[in-house]
Amino acid sequence: MERQDDAVGKLNHGDSSVQTGAPSAREHSGSPQQEQPAIMQRDEYLPVPGEEKNLDVDDVNIEAESNESIPMKKLYLDDGSSLHPHLGPYFSDGQRRVDYVLAYEIEKPSSIRHRSSRFSGNKFIQRLRRSFNRSSSRAALHPKADPEIAAQEQRTDYHEDDKRFRREEFEENLLEMGLELEKDERSKIPEMGFVKIHAPWNVLCREAEFMKLKMPTKKVYEVKQGSNVVENVRQFIHKVTAPLHPKIEPSRPQNVKSLCHPFSREKQHLFDLSDRDRFFDSKTRSSIVYQILKRTRCTKAKYSMGITSLLANGVYMSAYPLHDGDIDGVNAESNDRKLLYEEWACYSVFYKYQPIGLIRKYFGEKIGLYFAWLGVYTQMLIPAAIIGVIVFLYGCATVDDNIPSMEICDPRNNITMCPLCDHACSYWELVTACGTARASHLFDNAATVIFSIFMALWAVLFMEHWKRRQMRLNYTWDLTGFGEEEQVENKDHNRAEYELRVMQKAMKQEQSNSKDEKVKLTCTDRMPAYLTTMVTMCFLIVLTFAIVFGVILYRISIKAALHMSNYPAARSNIRATVKTTAAIINLIIIIILDEIYGSIARWLTTLEVPKTDKSFEERLIFKAFILKFANAFTPIVYLAFFRGRLVGRPGKYLYVVGSYRMEECAHAGCLMELCIQLCITMLGKQLIQNNLFEIGIPKLKKLLRRRKSDLDSKQEEELNRTMQRYEKDHFLGPFVGLSPEYMEMIIQFGMVTLFVASFPLAPLFALLNNIIEIRLDAKKFVTELRRPIAVKAKDIGIWYNILRGLSKVAVIVNAFVISFTSDFIPRLVYQHMFSPDGTLHGFVNHSLSYFNVTDFQPGTEPVEPMHLGYKVEICRYKDYREPPWSSTPYQLSKDFWAILAARLAFVIVFQNVVMLMSDFVDWLIPDIPKDISVQMHKEKILMVEVFMKEEQGKRLAAQDNQNQDKCASPSSDNQSPPQPRSRPISHAN
Amino acid sequence: MERQDDAVGKLNHGDSSVQTGAPSAREHSGSPQQEQPAIMQRDEYLPVPGEEKNLDVDDVNIEAESNESIPMKKLYLDDGSSLHPHLGPYFSDGQRRVDYVLAYEIEKPSSIRHRSSRFSGNKFIQRLRRSFNRSSSRAALHPKADPEIAAQEQRTDYHEDDKRFRREEFEENLLEMGLELEKDERSKIPEMGFVKIHAPWNVLCREAEFMKLKMPTKKVYEVKQGSNVVENVRQFIHKVTAPLHPKIEPSRPQNVKSLCHPFSREKQHLFDLSDRDRFFDSKTRSSIVYQILKRTRCTKAKYSMGITSLLANGVYMSAYPLHDGDIDGVNAESNDRKLLYEEWACYSVFYKYQPIGLIRKYFGEKIGLYFAWLGVYTQMLIPAAIIGVIVFLYGCATVDDNIPSMEICDPRNNITMCPLCDHACSYWELVTACGTARASHLFDNAATVIFSIFMALWAVLFMEHWKRRQMRLNYTWDLTGFGEEEQVENKDHNRAEYELRVMQKAMKQEQSNSKDEKVKLTCTDRMPAYLTTMVTMCFLIVLTFAIVFGVILYRISIKAALHMSNYPAARSNIRATVKTTAAIINLIIIIILDEIYGSIARWLTTLEVPKTDKSFEERLIFKAFILKFANAFTPIVYLAFFRGRLVGRPGKYLYVVGSYRMEECAHAGCLMELCIQLCITMLGKQLIQNNLFEIGIPKLKKLLRRRKSDLDSKQEEELNRTMQRYEKDHFLGPFVGLSPEYMEMIIQFGMVTLFVASFPLAPLFALLNNIIEIRLDAKKFVTELRRPIAVKAKDIGIWYNILRGLSKVAVIVNAFVISFTSDFIPRLVYQHMFSPDGTLHGFVNHSLSYFNVTDFQPGTEPVEPMHLGYKVEICRYKDYREPPWSSTPYQLSKDFWAILAARLAFVIVFQNVVMLMSDFVDWLIPDIPKDISVQMHKEKILMVEVFMKEEQGKRLAAQDNQNQDKCASPSSDNQSPPQPRSRPISHAN
Repeated sequence: MERQDDAVGKLNHGDSSVQTGAPSAREHSGSPQQEQPAIMQRDEYLPVPGEEKNLDVDDVNIEAESNESIPMKKLYLDDGSSLHPHLGPYFSDGQRRVDYVLAYEIEKPSSIRHRSSRFSGNKFIQRLRRSFNRSSSRAALHPKADPEIAAQEQRTDYHEDDKRFRREEFEENLLEMGLELEKDERSKIPEMGFVKIHAPWNVLCREAEFMKLKMPTKKVYEVKQGSNVVENVRQFIHKVTAPLHPKIEPSRPQNVKSLCHPFSREKQHLFDLSDRDRFFDSKTRSSIVYQILKRTRCTKAKYSMGITSLLANGVYMSAYPLHDGDIDGVNAESNDRKLLYEEWACYSVFYKYQPIGLIRKYFGEKIGLYFAWLGVYTQMLIPAAIIGVIVFLYGCATVDDNIPSMEICDPRNNITMCPLCDHACSYWELVTACGTARASHLFDNAATVIFSIFMALWAVLFMEHWKRRQMRLNYTWDLTGFGEEEQVENKDHNRAEYELRVMQKAMKQEQSNSKDEKVKLTCTDRMPAYLTTMVTMCFLIVLTFAIVFGVILYRISIKAALHMSNYPAARSNIRATVKTTAAIINLIIIIILDEIYGSIARWLTTLEVPKTDKSFEERLIFKAFILKFANAFTPIVYLAFFRGRLVGRPGKYLYVVGSYRMEECAHAGCLMELCIQLCITMLGKQLIQNNLFEIGIPKLKKLLRRRKSDLDSKQEEELNRTMQRYEKDHFLGPFVGLSPEYMEMIIQFGMVTLFVASFPLAPLFALLNNIIEIRLDAKKFVTELRRPIAVKAKDIGIWYNILRGLSKVAVIVNAFVISFTSDFIPRLVYQHMFSPDGTLHGFVNHSLSYFNVTDFQPGTEPVEPMHLGYKVEICRYKDYREPPWSSTPYQLSKDFWAILAARLAFVIVFQNVVMLMSDFVDWLIPDIPKDISVQMHKEKILMVEVFMKEEQGKRLAAQDNQNQDKCASPSSDNQSPPQPRSRPISHAN
Repeated sequence: MERQDDAVGKLNHGDSSVQTGAPSAREHSGSPQQEQPAIMQRDEYLPVPGEEKNLDVDDVNIEAESNESIPMKKLYLDDGSSLHPHLGPYFSDGQRRVDYVLAYEIEKPSSIRHRSSRFSGNKFIQRLRRSFNRSSSRAALHPKADPEIAAQEQRTDYHEDDKRFRREEFEENLLEMGLELEKDERSKIPEMGFVKIHAPWNVLCREAEFMKLKMPTKKVYEVKQGSNVVENVRQFIHKVTAPLHPKIEPSRPQNVKSLCHPFSREKQHLFDLSDRDRFFDSKTRSSIVYQILKRTRCTKAKYSMGITSLLANGVYMSAYPLHDGDIDGVNAESNDRKLLYEEWACYSVFYKYQPIGLIRKYFGEKIGLYFAWLGVYTQMLIPAAIIGVIVFLYGCATVDDNIPSMEICDPRNNITMCPLCDHACSYWELVTACGTARASHLFDNAATVIFSIFMALWAVLFMEHWKRRQMRLNYTWDLTGFGEEEQVENKDHNRAEYELRVMQKAMKQEQSNSKDEKVKLTCTDRMPAYLTTMVTMCFLIVLTFAIVFGVILYRISIKAALHMSNYPAARSNIRATVKTTAAIINLIIIIILDEIYGSIARWLTTLEVPKTDKSFEERLIFKAFILKFANAFTPIVYLAFFRGRLVGRPGKYLYVVGSYRMEECAHAGCLMELCIQLCITMLGKQLIQNNLFEIGIPKLKKLLRRRKSDLDSKQEEELNRTMQRYEKDHFLGPFVGLSPEYMEMIIQFGMVTLFVASFPLAPLFALLNNIIEIRLDAKKFVTELRRPIAVKAKDIGIWYNILRGLSKVAVIVNAFVISFTSDFIPRLVYQHMFSPDGTLHGFVNHSLSYFNVTDFQPGTEPVEPMHLGYKVEICRYKDYREPPWSSTPYQLSKDFWAILAARLAFVIVFQNVVMLMSDFVDWLIPDIPKDISVQMHKEKILMVEVFMKEEQGKRLAAQDNQNQDKCASPSSDNQSPPQPRSRPISHAN
């Protein structure tokens, strides 16, 4: 009972708040009254006949006017610590927390404009704002979770008054829902008005009950981690890794957990409501307000509009919850954001675990899961990187024992090879390929096969590990009961563009038809968009192929040209030059197309007018994934599987585009070139995209901005100190969803798993990149973006499926890389079928076929046949074909078919064995960790116990009652209506 | 208010009921008082100091004694319709429903035994009971969902008194939980006592709230099936298929659905409680009582025991809910069971849809899902069977155009084949294999490949279709919110055997150790069992292989023996004789081993002492699946992939076990033999297992029983008429879980999908079998088994995963069957690589290698070289090897490698293409049907609406209150404790 008084006291606390009871009291919005921060509060959201309260309201209004100016003045005049409370995320009374902010543009009378110009930072701010708006156009390449970007894109020019009326109606509706508002049109940012929204306790309770938010109850229990041995090991590991843990004090001992239960006002006694301000944390408060904002509609307009439509139509510029506080500077008291900045979003702590609990607490489950996933991925890359390096080192160590490369490098063998191009090139000696052969061995040895199998299993283990980690987080975050239904509900709000289109269609239909059915967009409406999508996608993929083909032509022609050139220096470095320039060209094309494809995917998705944000996101991801994936992997796939296969044979080469002979591989297979391409793509992409785009460009911008702006750093700091929280956050970028972050990681995951057989160092590169990536993303979220709306999520959604798909494809791709791109199978076959002594001696000779130079097609023989200093009669080429002296010259030989069969058999065996092993591992490792399932069971039992006790209490109470007034109601039984709530509370205490 | 009075009236209704308030009142259990049906009721389950009520109780007790005998007498004396109410599932007051029955053995004093012997049916019943007990030992081969079987297996001989004391304590505890009991130790079944349990309204409500049972609210809404067109099509289809629908009137119009909400006493006003007797149906009532029985423990014994332990220890013989009524006979009024019998469990309605809704209503969700699944499977088999028949007919139609078989059958080709066995056999002419070759074509043609792909996709479509159907059922049955948590809760009750073992261990530890930790079975405790399992499983699998090998030896030796025999008749029919006898031997072994393996799997699982029933079931399924699957498929796999491959070549044959040459295939591949084996296995297994075991034997038993028993049919009918419901149900078999049913179907599914490439008629056979199977199972459930406890389930659990796994394996197996077992690939390769004119002319010649008869190993050449009438110098054999005149005679030829490569390539392409297509289909078809997701969303919105309205009502009420007593509590706000419950009720009305 005491508590309730407390709450009431709180609600009526703000002396300065204005009680605008009825809408009629606020109709004159243009008046000077409106210019002052008007604070509106109403503790009931049902429309009550206005007459009753009007009098009181007016009274208070007058009073407020005099009171209100004080804090504002204080704000402008005072300096230092005394203004602390007002710079925090509070209403001007310093008490009520701002849970959400709506920002809008206002056409200010010139007087105000003049007044605001007395800030020296004004111009700077304007410029800031403009540059921010520009920078958000880059963000538009990415999917938007925030409808605000749509607002900036599609802002239609409504008349200013129209917008104001809508705002007023919307705000009235918000008041009716029980929210409290405070307007500020005199902020330090000119032409911008802000509506600060505060959700009072009763609204929070009501919405929490609707949303079935799980809140911690008073009941805590000890989390026991299995048996003593396990517990000791855990403790030991924890002690050893202590320096790796972020320095964040948990709010309670780690082995104690609160029992959670969906919040319900009827069961209030279960929850610890002693500190009502903290019961719902800032994240929960803002997401509650966001729910109300989404639901509340503005019906005066032609069609109903929620906050998303209002944003899309530019009625509001932006809507965002506030950050908890400053990161640094004088105003920075201790807050979660600062803690996150210090212990997470900082390169100096790169070696530490992430404070996932705190991230979740501050940003919500969805973003928490992203970082947890990124953390798990990075962690899992460590063993992969180590083994990759070991495999590489094994290659280095055994390069001198490798018989094939020894044979190639041995000048005594004296093997004359057929020319690599028509006419210009001449015969060459195999010994010149010695370097390439030795380098190839680094990536093409027996260890690679094992590593490849290991990585396939690694991928499965990673998925399993993540599933378990996810489950553990779900348990820790009390999401176990959070079903799909709730998740759906969060997302199936219609998009503003969709509503607009539907309205247009409805208006059309209204003319011709009676609107008997609910109008919706059918396939027919979307057909043009679908067709555009199909055509564009096909075109883009063909474009990707064409570009790769272009690069091939570049390589062929440059090679021929360089061969023809007279500079010996050029000729000696031909291979290296061509390979490197081609790889770099590929890389640049990939990076440019990546950006272009991203925006095209976005544009196509917008054309389709998806109904909900979820659908929008899914379609966008689908398109962007296909395009970006094709873009990143086409050159690699070409190198791995097509290069060197379609060359024909000497005397009967395959020609493309007139007279270009298809390029051959270096002697030791194409694996080396694939490796170079992968290396350059991975390193280059990461270096350029991450470091240049994500670190370099923002820094450069900042530098330029500072140089251009008139104010020095001291002034800026001054401004920084005096700006209110919502003004500061206004300058931050909007949150654009996690898709781009995930996409980047998925492409990287593809690189790491798909072609790992050819490049064992890929995990190492990925690991190094990710260590930076985590902190980079963290920095972005903490310092550069507005606080995102906390979204509940149990899992990482579609990305998990994409990961699964990739790891399945990886098995097949690796099987093919090992058996077809590398020389592993031919070596194996030679060793067991053809070798006279069971070693690889003679392998090189066996793998080369004979060609009689008299069989060259006329005009293709080399111009300098005596280039090597002797006359060549028989030259050799890499293939398994019959020699010229057989009955069927140059036909594919029996060896070829035997090796082909072995290669194919290897693919089948590898694919099925690895898939079986993967499935086995998947089956072996339970998705839910044992201790978690035990804990969950325990929690359930505890819950039943709590309710049983309550039941008992109720029964006892009922009995007491019964005894007391036995005569009054002799027929009452167990089923009597529940007793007043106060009883179970006292019992629970 | 009115309703509550009603409930109270009900509770106090039974005039004849005895109020035994305190345990002390019932201590004298051996006394004659106890012999009479004692009815106990208590409406509060908290231990109340007994003194208060003792007096009343004794009073009523005396009264009861005189009253109680009346209905019992009536029962014995009356005939005909007047005893109707008492034969239904009611207490002897004819009012309170029997929701559960516990049966136990009693040692009756001789006087009672004498009294009971006046029924002429007595001996018959004893025999019946005994035979039933015996028959249940067969049931023990299957996993048990019902703990009762364990009881019959492991009954330890507790002292009779001990058992009685435990019963008494348990029953007291049940009374304390609020249940009402009625004892009947004078039933017509001698030496058996029955405790009938009734759950009164308040207990039902309480438990329903705990179990979060979703109950229909008063709010109904119309289910709209998409747009008008869709709706019209649906209506049309419904009209066309009208005769296929079972004649069951739905309780409400089909397009209206109640909004469901977890039952809560606080929200009682939401539910339509006008008919309290029907609000919870009989299935729900009994599962509620079962929950209480599981939870209630008997602590007086050395360790705590729930009903499962009590059953396991023989304290009770059995525990079961009652069927709704009789199927036929005089007493059969209309009830759900009868309706099910008429419209479902009857061969005459085999062409109709199943009344799934009614099945679910009567048996619960788990069994409903089984039959729904079986129905979907059978339905999906129809197109597969049709296409299979078409493929077969295509084979028949094209058999005369098939060039290879024409070539074989053409005597002009005059190809002399090498002998099929050493010594005894001689050369033979290929033309004699003409028949086999023609027959082979029926199953080995181009259409088979297409059919194989079709079936792989069919399997995926089936899974998808089932997922959607499941989702639809989940929606219709309101299981959408029913999460994993609840499912876990239903199953994680410790098994009695486990508790016994834990107790034993605890007692051991107590002697040596302080019992500081909770005792549980560790891996060490289970190690011997695990080892036994491993060894036994390995042994059994080896045994399976050995048996298959034995059959192979049988075939080889018989073939050789027949070849040597002098009867020309025997020699001419060698192939057919050997094949058929071998297949039949295989079949018989499979059927016998199937039963043996089932019981071994069960025994092994019992040894492992799994903790919960769920774990027991899973382990049992795992073992039984592996064993039964290996058993059923080993001979088939041998035939498909190993037969004829490991034969060596003429002159260098492979010998096993001394001098047995491995058997070869007939010329046209082994596909024909595989086909015969499959056909015999499928047909035989289904005919024998289903029809003989499941139909024939019960009928035979019944016949024998009737002949032996002294009473004629009239007497039996008489007994049938006078027996009470619980007595009748006592004679029925216990429900042993769905695993055996699923297992049978899964093996069949394996037959249908795994080797479908070799036997396109498999789906047809399966379809025919399933049409019978559905009605057979239905009959069993409705007429022959006790009513199972309704178990909630959202899906078919592990079986779905097994199905998925099978359909994945099927892709690979089919790929191998097509490429290796059939001649499809060699034909294709010949046509495209070797054929001079692009046709198959010359294929037979090309596929045969040459052998010079002088190269036979000494002693292996045929004894009758002149058998064919001419001297043979070169004989032919089916392989791709170099001819004797080449430089490397009898080596594998280039053709062999080329064809092998083609075969392997086909496997890779087939596997990956089909897998890709499957995944694509999987991705294309949404798991949740569109209309269902729309409905679910609608339902959610409606729910919010209902609560919003309630909220508003509450608020209005609160406001009224506030207005009324404004002066009394000026500080009260929205947060005041909820108003008395009666208000929202009145509002909702």
